[in-house]
Amino acid sequence: MKLVRSRAKKVGMPPGTLVHIGDQTSKRVRITVFEYDATSFQERQLSGPDDIRVAASQKITWVDVGGVHDLAVIEAIGQRFQLHPLLLEDIVNTDQRPKLDDYETYYYVVLKMCYAGQRREDIHVEQVSLILGTTFVLSFQENGGDVFDPVRERLRTGKGRIRQSGADYLLYRLMDGIVDHYFEVMETLGEKVETVQDELLDNPQPELLRSIHALKRELIFLRRAVWPCREVMSSLERSESSLVQGATKLYIRDVYDHVVQILDTIEALREMVTGMLDIYLSSISYRLNAVMKVLTVITTIFMPLTFIVGIYGMNFQYMPELESRWGYPAVLLVMVSIAASMLIFFKRKKWL
Amino acid sequence: MKLVRSRAKKVGMPPGTLVHIGDQTSKRVRITVFEYDATSFQERQLSGPDDIRVAASQKITWVDVGGVHDLAVIEAIGQRFQLHPLLLEDIVNTDQRPKLDDYETYYYVVLKMCYAGQRREDIHVEQVSLILGTTFVLSFQENGGDVFDPVRERLRTGKGRIRQSGADYLLYRLMDGIVDHYFEVMETLGEKVETVQDELLDNPQPELLRSIHALKRELIFLRRAVWPCREVMSSLERSESSLVQGATKLYIRDVYDHVVQILDTIEALREMVTGMLDIYLSSISYRLNAVMKVLTVITTIFMPLTFIVGIYGMNFQYMPELESRWGYPAVLLVMVSIAASMLIFFKRKKWL
Amino acid sequence: MKLVRSRAKKVGMPPGTLVHIGDQTSKRVRITVFEYDATSFQERQLSGPDDIRVAASQKITWVDVGGVHDLAVIEAIGQRFQLHPLLLEDIVNTDQRPKLDDYETYYYVVLKMCYAGQRREDIHVEQVSLILGTTFVLSFQENGGDVFDPVRERLRTGKGRIRQSGADYLLYRLMDGIVDHYFEVMETLGEKVETVQDELLDNPQPELLRSIHALKRELIFLRRAVWPCREVMSSLERSESSLVQGATKLYIRDVYDHVVQILDTIEALREMVTGMLDIYLSSISYRLNAVMKVLTVITTIFMPLTFIVGIYGMNFQYMPELESRWGYPAVLLVMVSIAASMLIFFKRKKWL
Amino acid sequence: MKLVRSRAKKVGMPPGTLVHIGDQTSKRVRITVFEYDATSFQERQLSGPDDIRVAASQKITWVDVGGVHDLAVIEAIGQRFQLHPLLLEDIVNTDQRPKLDDYETYYYVVLKMCYAGQRREDIHVEQVSLILGTTFVLSFQENGGDVFDPVRERLRTGKGRIRQSGADYLLYRLMDGIVDHYFEVMETLGEKVETVQDELLDNPQPELLRSIHALKRELIFLRRAVWPCREVMSSLERSESSLVQGATKLYIRDVYDHVVQILDTIEALREMVTGMLDIYLSSISYRLNAVMKVLTVITTIFMPLTFIVGIYGMNFQYMPELESRWGYPAVLLVMVSIAASMLIFFKRKKWL
Amino acid sequence: MKLVRSRAKKVGMPPGTLVHIGDQTSKRVRITVFEYDATSFQERQLSGPDDIRVAASQKITWVDVGGVHDLAVIEAIGQRFQLHPLLLEDIVNTDQRPKLDDYETYYYVVLKMCYAGQRREDIHVEQVSLILGTTFVLSFQENGGDVFDPVRERLRTGKGRIRQSGADYLLYRLMDGIVDHYFEVMETLGEKVETVQDELLDNPQPELLRSIHALKRELIFLRRAVWPCREVMSSLERSESSLVQGATKLYIRDVYDHVVQILDTIEALREMVTGMLDIYLSSISYRLNAVMKVLTVITTIFMPLTFIVGIYGMNFQYMPELESRWGYPAVLLVMVSIAASMLIFFKRKKWL
Repeated sequence: MKLVRSRAKKVGMPPGTLVHIGDQTSKRVRITVFEYDATSFQERQLSGPDDIRVAASQKITWVDVGGVHDLAVIEAIGQRFQLHPLLLEDIVNTDQRPKLDDYETYYYVVLKMCYAGQRREDIHVEQVSLILGTTFVLSFQENGGDVFDPVRERLRTGKGRIRQSGADYLLYRLMDGIVDHYFEVMETLGEKVETVQDELLDNPQPELLRSIHALKRELIFLRRAVWPCREVMSSLERSESSLVQGATKLYIRDVYDHVVQILDTIEALREMVTGMLDIYLSSISYRLNAVMKVLTVITTIFMPLTFIVGIYGMNFQYMPELESRWGYPAVLLVMVSIAASMLIFFKRKKWL
Repeated sequence: MKLVRSRAKKVGMPPGTLVHIGDQTSKRVRITVFEYDATSFQERQLSGPDDIRVAASQKITWVDVGGVHDLAVIEAIGQRFQLHPLLLEDIVNTDQRPKLDDYETYYYVVLKMCYAGQRREDIHVEQVSLILGTTFVLSFQENGGDVFDPVRERLRTGKGRIRQSGADYLLYRLMDGIVDHYFEVMETLGEKVETVQDELLDNPQPELLRSIHALKRELIFLRRAVWPCREVMSSLERSESSLVQGATKLYIRDVYDHVVQILDTIEALREMVTGMLDIYLSSISYRLNAVMKVLTVITTIFMPLTFIVGIYGMNFQYMPELESRWGYPAVLLVMVSIAASMLIFFKRKKWL
Repeated sequence: MKLVRSRAKKVGMPPGTLVHIGDQTSKRVRITVFEYDATSFQERQLSGPDDIRVAASQKITWVDVGGVHDLAVIEAIGQRFQLHPLLLEDIVNTDQRPKLDDYETYYYVVLKMCYAGQRREDIHVEQVSLILGTTFVLSFQENGGDVFDPVRERLRTGKGRIRQSGADYLLYRLMDGIVDHYFEVMETLGEKVETVQDELLDNPQPELLRSIHALKRELIFLRRAVWPCREVMSSLERSESSLVQGATKLYIRDVYDHVVQILDTIEALREMVTGMLDIYLSSISYRLNAVMKVLTVITTIFMPLTFIVGIYGMNFQYMPELESRWGYPAVLLVMVSIAASMLIFFKRKKWL
Repeated sequence: MKLVRSRAKKVGMPPGTLVHIGDQTSKRVRITVFEYDATSFQERQLSGPDDIRVAASQKITWVDVGGVHDLAVIEAIGQRFQLHPLLLEDIVNTDQRPKLDDYETYYYVVLKMCYAGQRREDIHVEQVSLILGTTFVLSFQENGGDVFDPVRERLRTGKGRIRQSGADYLLYRLMDGIVDHYFEVMETLGEKVETVQDELLDNPQPELLRSIHALKRELIFLRRAVWPCREVMSSLERSESSLVQGATKLYIRDVYDHVVQILDTIEALREMVTGMLDIYLSSISYRLNAVMKVLTVITTIFMPLTFIVGIYGMNFQYMPELESRWGYPAVLLVMVSIAASMLIFFKRKKWL
Repeated sequence: MKLVRSRAKKVGMPPGTLVHIGDQTSKRVRITVFEYDATSFQERQLSGPDDIRVAASQKITWVDVGGVHDLAVIEAIGQRFQLHPLLLEDIVNTDQRPKLDDYETYYYVVLKMCYAGQRREDIHVEQVSLILGTTFVLSFQENGGDVFDPVRERLRTGKGRIRQSGADYLLYRLMDGIVDHYFEVMETLGEKVETVQDELLDNPQPELLRSIHALKRELIFLRRAVWPCREVMSSLERSESSLVQGATKLYIRDVYDHVVQILDTIEALREMVTGMLDIYLSSISYRLNAVMKVLTVITTIFMPLTFIVGIYGMNFQYMPELESRWGYPAVLLVMVSIAASMLIFFKRKKWL
């Protein structure tokens, strides 16, 4: 994840100019069209944008596009569905903030799809554009992927409400699929936080700084992706357009609740992570203290002793103690008692 | 308490699919039905969901369910009371955020029940779902428990307003029982904070880091559980539905006041706990300072002395002092005066 | 001041049950009744709640109750003035948050009375309940006390607007008296903050940690007591009930301004206190640095010297220097020049 | 600047009692009256409040009062212009928060006048009360001073819009004069912040702590003085009273913009200053590190060497090395190589 | 970038007085006039303000002014287009906060233009004033520059919507050009943050303090420049004036989205940078710990050894060990075992 994506090539372009901003890929764009009503269902894999047509008025059409790097395809679809140039520009610029744009005859929803990578540590973020018309839904993913698979499966089997309901319910199901994946990511992050936390209290190491920093970064990213979703869902729920029916709003409120819950969790994790650096610093300081106590104890005991033995190492000719028979043992005794009293002193001060 | 509960198995499920998210248990679900009006009262322990029926229109029915892990039971109750599938899904998913959902003919309230465990240190959090209809209240607890016991007792003895009032008053009493328990938990936490605080100022130990961290965590959890209650109560109070009568709103405002008071206390405790790490760090630093002063004093006194005795330990053939009769006492005198002046110096600098 | 007051005994009680929460006392409740209009004034000390009666409609009655621990008294007054059970419950539960409850025929105001104790360091907080009816005001203090004395005096002498005005003006005067005392408390706290601040910059001592912590705590408490007053005053000012007249609203806005000013000051003091710990830590660190420089200078000067004298203390048979006539003075000279160059070096590095 | 001004003498006073809160002074109150319309202009220095009278209805009267400590003067003016007692109380209590009070027939505006003292370091804060009537403006300053001088000059010369416009435009000019001085103060503070910042990065000294603390304090004060101005200006701009004409509102919006800009700058400076303590602490820590490295290097090099020379200073009779002809040079060589390898080691670890 | 620009010379000036606040320059002001409609286009470089005239009503006129330091030019333009004196004052005072002022017959928009300097590290901020009339747009830049070049190019070639649309669309294009440049600046800053971050974790050096401080400062500046843009765009979008047409509002909303996205990024970067100082401090502390461990290990090993060799360096006549044949090797053995056990001890404590 880069903090700021390069949009340099876009500077100075007039609005509506399609410039793909995102990871380059040469994969072919995958277009699948689903047409269904309560009784019929048809799924077609298209070879190009020219074959798209909206089904007869009673049926719901879902055009599911995987890949937004082929500008010709996007433009062709745009013309077919009479989409606004600004909207097309937003589809191919994968650096959008999640939002809901009301184009009167259709809604444009941008969301961020988050999913854990194969190594569970990596979190991938991908932009999903959804367009809701009266009888159709268009969806644009950067790479495609399996987030929408359960919805496709449902459509094929025809179980549940989905085939009986309108395009707005399909939109809900797609958004619900995206938001559900956030929970998975939150879980991964939650576990990471717990792990780092335990290590932190047991054995503060500088590598933990790196982990804490990475966690903080991921949470900042995630928050940027999820926070605006709240507004998107709440706008949809309060929408007075005929595009979203009353019955579907109950479901959208459910997605809204999920988004709020995810934001709550992100905030809680952020607070945890913020507190970690303080704990790290406190632990390090305490250990420094312990180290210094050892140093001080050693120095305090041996410095006076070394001084004493130094005295009797002097070469003065007239040092009466040196000739005394009991000088040596007496000095040893004195030194033992000095060391002992020092030890008792430090014991009392709880330094040992 | 885990930071993030696993919902992985739910990903991709269509809405309304009942999947129990929470601690597994094999205990049998306990269903009790209370039917009452001002003059009559009946309490029945049900063997299964099939025996539930709503009482004749003049009576209030309270279906008190302990345990949400048996999906068959939940589904049966849902059918009997014509509850929305999304609502049933929320009942069994015990990872909800407190909320009020308005399903027009009934209200759905999710709250978190907090209570101190047997070892007062542990705080248990449990989800409670409450459904308010015109003449009935359904309550779903994860394990059941004694939070509602005072209400049951009241109903049985028939004292007070409760038997004269409608279903909305019963809902109020149940919510009041839940919120009352928060005070108990706050008290426990308040005492913990005071204890840690006193220890912190007396004797900062690294174990305190663990305690502070745990306190912080508990407060974050509690806040997440209580904060949305505020909105729930305020929505209920402002409700214009006929489900909640004007007279009951005074009582609900009282619960609202309690919730706000608890949030106030949580914020105050959080501020205290946040300040603790700073105090810890400051104390540790001060102590380090004290230790280093001891080390420096010892070193500063003995290093020069050791150097002096070293001089007269050299084996040069021509060292006139060595042969002098007064060399030894003179050196001793010099060293005593050096040590004394050092001590005075450090005394003045307030290092001793 | 305890962080969280025990309400344990209240858990599970039905609403309206009177349970006194607060410091126990066996003092007798003091009830004084003032009846007045522009021309007449009567003050009666009552022996019990039975003697209370509302005066003829033209007069204003103020029932001034000192002590809320005697539940019988509270209940009797409640019956006489037909007060709601929830209100009575709030009077005796002295752990309320300041608030304004609108019971239509009367207003219920809870405020916190703060005053500096005899040792100016202690800040006492006491709950005051005020009830405003059309022609009466009831006031309940925990201990009574002199906060209302100026108002009583005014009533007796009959000077100023007070006797000409209605019950709402009396309420204002009582609230004004409470808020005026906050200024006194703020002054005490402001002085404490200045004192600690000066000591902190002059001589950072660990006892200051305790003072800073205590200040922080007091400010948190005070903020909790004053913050909700803002809303109380603003609600009263915007009130559309006939209980509060337009002319009085100007005065209430004045109290509102005072409350906002106090909150401003609390915030400013809090910012000061929060910054203090950082200053403490920085000072300690700087001093540690100074101590370590002394240690390092001493060590760096004497370690090489001690090493040199150690060399010539070795007992090798063939050490030509030892026999040289100038060996001893030469070594002394070398050592002096080493010490001198070290001192110059440290001087340059500004360590001395 | 004191954090909290003493209002102790006011406690218990009835509202409308005039008590001067502020610095005592015995200077005589200066009253100047300006009467003007587009064609005429008259300026009179009054000897006392009795000479004040409102001019004939076509003219604008500005009563410019310097000094609020003489309560008799204030009261006399209050009677002449029929001002509310609470307003008079606020004029003499110079501890007010900036505010706009709407007394229907006139507006009362309290602002704080900030200006740099003669030594540019000192920032003086003074309360200004402005009263706007239909044809008059009253202004009360604590000491008077030159903030309004440009306005006076303009009136005298009669240039520009001022003489053609109404009382509201005069009010705007006075407020604009006050706000303009904030910019001057901000500039002084901005320079101080830059200076401290540079010193901080170059040579962190404990005296900087004092400077940082003083800056923080001044910014807190300034913010308290300016923040409420925003609301004052915005209320005036949105005012629907006939006191403020539409044409003047454009000008007031300009003042509003200035106030917002000043608040922006204060916030930016506050963030800078808050970050300074962290930088100070980090610098100190880094330096401590450097000092400790020196100490460790010295100790690590000389301790082993001193030990070695100690060995050959022992007086055992049978120490073969001592008699060897090459013992002494061999030991010297060993010691040189130990020292050299230590130095290389520390060089590699980048400690030197 | 200076924190606070000097406005001192403006203090006391009446409103509408033109005083240029900004960097002085003697360059000649460049005035270009573009007149166009769907079919015609004319571009004229003017020698002075006198040649400006608004085109016939069907055409759009864009007066593009580079340089605001020549007050005569500004005043002449102001008279020609009947602009309010306050507006002219704001144009030449380049220290404005971004804002939208509604002068009914025209809109006045102030924005800040940010662009990376030639050395990408420098960020330049310049004020741009835009005035939107029914058929004209005036733009004032401090130095001119290439931000508007793509718009000029578009006008000349006549491609796209721009020549078919009204003045409001031109305003949008100019604002879009300014906001697009923010992305470029954000990218530069994002890269700097990444660089500092990596260095910080690898090798914390005090120079990084300077970099962190500079980054913080730049982000504070940028935030001040961009934050108010949000309100400007949102006001334009919600504008009910005929100056902005419905079709253009879609485009303005797009700019609004960009501004919000930039603010999001600024916030994320700020959080990163704020966390950096903590990481720096933690790293430094950890390294200090490591250094102290080395010191302690060396001291702890050699102090006892030096003491032992000191003992046998004493000159007592009766020290039996000295005469023993095995004394010397025995002492060596004892010392080796002491050193070895110390090393094992430290190994166990993980200090080595």
